[in-house]
Amino acid sequence: MKRSATAVVVALALGVGAGAAMAQAKPEQLVKQRQSVMTLQGKYFGPMAAMAQGKAPYNADIVKRNAAFLDNLSLMPWDTFDPSTKDVKNSGALPAIYEQPGKFKEAASRLENESHKLYTAAQSGDEAAVKAQIGAVGKSCGACHESFRQKQ
Amino acid sequence: MKRSATAVVVALALGVGAGAAMAQAKPEQLVKQRQSVMTLQGKYFGPMAAMAQGKAPYNADIVKRNAAFLDNLSLMPWDTFDPSTKDVKNSGALPAIYEQPGKFKEAASRLENESHKLYTAAQSGDEAAVKAQIGAVGKSCGACHESFRQKQ
Repeated sequence: MKRSATAVVVALALGVGAGAAMAQAKPEQLVKQRQSVMTLQGKYFGPMAAMAQGKAPYNADIVKRNAAFLDNLSLMPWDTFDPSTKDVKNSGALPAIYEQPGKFKEAASRLENESHKLYTAAQSGDEAAVKAQIGAVGKSCGACHESFRQKQ
Repeated sequence: MKRSATAVVVALALGVGAGAAMAQAKPEQLVKQRQSVMTLQGKYFGPMAAMAQGKAPYNADIVKRNAAFLDNLSLMPWDTFDPSTKDVKNSGALPAIYEQPGKFKEAASRLENESHKLYTAAQSGDEAAVKAQIGAVGKSCGACHESFRQKQ
């Protein structure tokens, strides 16, 4: 589980614009990359949300694994939100991302922070705390989508 | 309970049924998930491969971050290779995956192990060791694709 914490520290140190190589990626590729992150966040968050809602039996091992994955995934989308992607089709990203960069960064940091708290809670084994934190992660997903993603 | 309701909305918005366990995921969704992993493995492995080949300047911080992400990503694809996905279009997965499950599992484990060794090497800061291990990861990607992915 140390690897996850390391990823957080390094990613934070590098900042959102990390990776000079990424700047060379084509807009379509950047959109594909961020949509890939969202797909995987859904894969690993979905079962935890079901557990928090009592719709699936609580499984501490799955939560530990999924929370560690989500902790990493929460750091991955941000450098793909480049202005060059504004006109790519099949993207639900709103112009507000580039018009309100401070607010977007705040929403991004909220997901990162709540996901990392969930990762930490999952290690503790405190089921009630984990379930509460799953809810907090869900709210951070929803808050960002509310402001920065087209309504579906 | 508001917290749980939010989580439901978010899980649905993310394309994951609120109560869905992975075993119930539709074949198309499983293919989308594994292709998402491959996309992100490419995003984080590509710059490291360029460094190992001397095509990009070595950056220890980027390697640390990317190796940690790749260490996690290397664990994510395997549960999506379900026989139910055999007939999904736009998948390059070969029937050999299901015909030679032992060999496939071996190839999967090789990627996991080599990726974890790269993560460990990245922490050490030994540039020569890191570059050698980037090569080993690349070989494990190639070996699995050679046997189990359609030629492109």
